[in-house]
Amino acid sequence: MKADAPLTIAAPSLLEFGRDCLVAAGMNEDNASSVARALVWADLRGVGSHGVARLPSYVRWLEAGDMNPRPAIRTVSDTPVLAILDADRAAGPIAMNAARDAAMERAKGAGVGIAFVRATTHTAALGHYTEAAANAGFVAIACAASGPIMAYHGARAAGVSTSPLSIAAPGGAFGPIVFDMGTGVVAFGRLAQAKLKGNPLPAGWALDGQGNPTTDPALAAIPLPLGGPKGSGLALMIEIVTSLLASNPILADALEGNEAGRRHRQNGLFIALDIRRFCDPDWFAAEAERLARALKALPADQPILLPGERGALESARRARQGIALPPGVVSELRALADRKGVGAEIFAMRDRSSSLDRAP
Amino acid sequence: MKADAPLTIAAPSLLEFGRDCLVAAGMNEDNASSVARALVWADLRGVGSHGVARLPSYVRWLEAGDMNPRPAIRTVSDTPVLAILDADRAAGPIAMNAARDAAMERAKGAGVGIAFVRATTHTAALGHYTEAAANAGFVAIACAASGPIMAYHGARAAGVSTSPLSIAAPGGAFGPIVFDMGTGVVAFGRLAQAKLKGNPLPAGWALDGQGNPTTDPALAAIPLPLGGPKGSGLALMIEIVTSLLASNPILADALEGNEAGRRHRQNGLFIALDIRRFCDPDWFAAEAERLARALKALPADQPILLPGERGALESARRARQGIALPPGVVSELRALADRKGVGAEIFAMRDRSSSLDRAP
Repeated sequence: MKADAPLTIAAPSLLEFGRDCLVAAGMNEDNASSVARALVWADLRGVGSHGVARLPSYVRWLEAGDMNPRPAIRTVSDTPVLAILDADRAAGPIAMNAARDAAMERAKGAGVGIAFVRATTHTAALGHYTEAAANAGFVAIACAASGPIMAYHGARAAGVSTSPLSIAAPGGAFGPIVFDMGTGVVAFGRLAQAKLKGNPLPAGWALDGQGNPTTDPALAAIPLPLGGPKGSGLALMIEIVTSLLASNPILADALEGNEAGRRHRQNGLFIALDIRRFCDPDWFAAEAERLARALKALPADQPILLPGERGALESARRARQGIALPPGVVSELRALADRKGVGAEIFAMRDRSSSLDRAP
Repeated sequence: MKADAPLTIAAPSLLEFGRDCLVAAGMNEDNASSVARALVWADLRGVGSHGVARLPSYVRWLEAGDMNPRPAIRTVSDTPVLAILDADRAAGPIAMNAARDAAMERAKGAGVGIAFVRATTHTAALGHYTEAAANAGFVAIACAASGPIMAYHGARAAGVSTSPLSIAAPGGAFGPIVFDMGTGVVAFGRLAQAKLKGNPLPAGWALDGQGNPTTDPALAAIPLPLGGPKGSGLALMIEIVTSLLASNPILADALEGNEAGRRHRQNGLFIALDIRRFCDPDWFAAEAERLARALKALPADQPILLPGERGALESARRARQGIALPPGVVSELRALADRKGVGAEIFAMRDRSSSLDRAP
């Protein structure tokens, strides 16, 4: 099979393609659009690991019944401050949007609102949800719990997830300040990229399948936690806070090898703090901006960036110039497009023309 | 001056000494005992950087008026879920105990309680407060904001604090699981230790006073953030969430060199979640214990530890065998003891006997 070339696609076309794939896999248009927006948000910011490259997995989960195309999200616990949502295996972005809205609505009344989500699936890039809350005048904190893919400090095997933590707040002239970190020393996606390119890894990034430290990208199987016990401890606490308080443990089942532990699932947590209930929102934004300016004025060899600023700049550039998908992703999406009969204008037709190219 | 020998002191004696120093500096007995307990808690766990070695600073702040010996802590904002406490420059442990109690009390009613503390001083080891909440059946999250001592990623100067984040929860048979991390790649105290011993630092730990990376412990002045943008981004967000929502910005004033920025002060945040409002607390503890057992059963070359477990083991050992203070700390405490006329039985009398030793 001829390798695909990289392909640059305008964000609206990619959104449409994502939506059409998910509709073809059984989702309604609204939900499919929301999920596509969450993925393309990451692609725009240059975080391809959380972008449309995930569509083949999403469709596979939908087909296998691990992701529910028509979920009935229920609020199983409801107070003026707290909500626990059972997501009925909804796509992560649907559940996390619902959690964000539930938390923000409660925060408007009580100053703070907290929503737990249980039984969702891949929550995508958490910054997508916290940024939206910051744009609406909230300070937002989100985290997500998932299955064991990262080494627990000291162990020769995966024990925890690379559980992300995102915090966002209005930043005045700088726009929302969107912090979004994984608890691994490196994102899983960067191990995969290094594997594709064959570049040796820095020491301290990964273990091989036998639990030995490795710098060979072909052998790297398990990312190591950020700062050893700090990263894996934080990931463990995210599981305990999020999954146990939501009554849906993930890690223990997976580590014990139970039936329940073999199915893909995630839990999420969203905390919203309504700035209006604490202080004048204009004062808050001006203070965040003043702090940002003070940091940017520090001596440095290159421009000092705020959390999320690189992604925001990249997003503006890609919104103009399109989103460049690497060859491997193009191949997978082309195969998905063909199988689902969607995306003809960007994937399938090019495939036909490249078939013509190869014709005698 | 003859260098002091290391000195091993029983925890109750050290508690008494700490209390007496603080009473001599103007605090009432109850508050002095609370502060001494917070410091000795850290010494017992082997975290000397947050232990009685801080007493000379505390007394200096009390004498300079930066720490208020008789604070009137006021609840400036009060809802069934939220409290904002103005600590009136109380010693950090007094303010953080009050925040913990305010958050727990609200969580009993609403499921969650959040307390912000503004205008406190050194908050000591956050695990001391979150552990107590976990022992009382809560999941607890705490963080603290302080002045710029750590490099902001990409800058050649300090821009943020090594702001700590602590999360604790009941762990069944394992006792409370107490996660407590700084956002620096290394604690400030470990730089000081390396300086005393003259050991070269690992690359990536610190900058010198001019902002250049250094491995020379004598030149190391500014610790680097954990994981580059992750550590300094998290520290920045802790300032934004804690200090701006509490209407008491710290970093911007310090970075701009304002008068207000030159005085020592901190802010804190405490979130309590009452497990009883979410699920059966026995189920929660059993699940946390099940997860801990599954992690401990992973293949490893040495025993796998939970967050805070090393400190808990050390605490049990030191409770039996006493707390060994290094020579530098002994000298400083001896000087403090002499100056304040306290601690005769452990410091001053030994000083006299060592004078006798030196007598011709």
